[in-house]
Amino acid sequence: MNLFFDPNLNTDSREVFIDKSEINHIEKVLRKKRGDFLNFTNGKGIEALVEICSNRNDFTFKVRDIVHHTIKNQNTHIAISPLKKTSFFELVVSKATELGIREITPLICEKSLRKSINYDRCKKIIISSLKQSLQYYLPRLNEAIGFKDFILKNNNGMIAHCSEGEKITISKALKKVKNKLIIIGPEGDFSLDEINFAKEYNYNEVTLGSNRLRTETAAIVACSLMLASE
Amino acid sequence: MNLFFDPNLNTDSREVFIDKSEINHIEKVLRKKRGDFLNFTNGKGIEALVEICSNRNDFTFKVRDIVHHTIKNQNTHIAISPLKKTSFFELVVSKATELGIREITPLICEKSLRKSINYDRCKKIIISSLKQSLQYYLPRLNEAIGFKDFILKNNNGMIAHCSEGEKITISKALKKVKNKLIIIGPEGDFSLDEINFAKEYNYNEVTLGSNRLRTETAAIVACSLMLASE
Repeated sequence: MNLFFDPNLNTDSREVFIDKSEINHIEKVLRKKRGDFLNFTNGKGIEALVEICSNRNDFTFKVRDIVHHTIKNQNTHIAISPLKKTSFFELVVSKATELGIREITPLICEKSLRKSINYDRCKKIIISSLKQSLQYYLPRLNEAIGFKDFILKNNNGMIAHCSEGEKITISKALKKVKNKLIIIGPEGDFSLDEINFAKEYNYNEVTLGSNRLRTETAAIVACSLMLASE
Repeated sequence: MNLFFDPNLNTDSREVFIDKSEINHIEKVLRKKRGDFLNFTNGKGIEALVEICSNRNDFTFKVRDIVHHTIKNQNTHIAISPLKKTSFFELVVSKATELGIREITPLICEKSLRKSINYDRCKKIIISSLKQSLQYYLPRLNEAIGFKDFILKNNNGMIAHCSEGEKITISKALKKVKNKLIIIGPEGDFSLDEINFAKEYNYNEVTLGSNRLRTETAAIVACSLMLASE
């Protein structure tokens, strides 16, 4: 099955619209023709079954059925520092989306070497991962925010860091916290001041195993363990 | 802490040897000088504490102490088809090593688009990930092997696939199987014939969640869930 994306699709839509390049893909690669059906989503829970029709030389896509999907993994959230190599941050965005995370926040920490991310690229990656993994809800990609502001807004979560601490596993922490929220620092880790600040606001220190993981690996593992315990 | 690699290090070594390029890194980036100490491993369980000495214009590295580490995650094994994009297979090799997997096998399946991998590149990636994650045992990277030959040699494991089946979670499957061994197919998945063949040889069908994951994501998630339940 292939899933296509039209952000403007809604319950009243009678037709969907997609990029010329995607039409090419449908025709030339997937070898779909008039009368065949395709599945579309708007990334807000709607799936439409769409028939390929033709109108002179152009394809048109008529909505034949609409399904509402319920949201899964609600309130799952990862906040992670922008990384020195943008492709590593984008890898996290892609994998977190595939795994079904609902919210991603770029977190500006004391030792963050980068203070921003490329939103346009990340949004494209999110849509591509959503289609690939056959999901119907786009995760929210928030604006970058400073560490302390984030903690004040989102208390009660999990912090993964490499310093000493009384760490528990994610599955144990999930029994204690209200939100499935984990924060991951930059390459140089969180500062001790940041760790203590998070602890004051009811963050549980969690372990991701005994090996020192690269930041992007830690983020993917954290998402995978957090979502496996749904 | 930084960990360096010398495959020839053994319990009787009085000195270690490394590449000129690494010496440059130690001197120029890490700013280490005569009298400082470094940690080395041979990837076979030995860690050596090494003192930087100098000999005219050259650095030499004298072994001052040797520690034997015990092996962790023994008998953890992932077999995965080579992928169309070699960088995706290499991503799996890198992340699986970081996570502490002990054995990696390229598995040639019916729908494998590639039948080989670049061993030299993969071995370099393994050493780099080992150093990064502060581990002392290199995982074994096996020769590529055909699907059925592999199953005959390694029965009793877990198979992750996208077809219908009576799937259980990895944590449940781990209570039933003798070996922590999971197999992951190519982009087009295992064939039904392959799935049935594996089932005959006591493979448990496992689920990695309800989303359709890209092959490399499935492999990383499988390693992360398998190793989290040590």
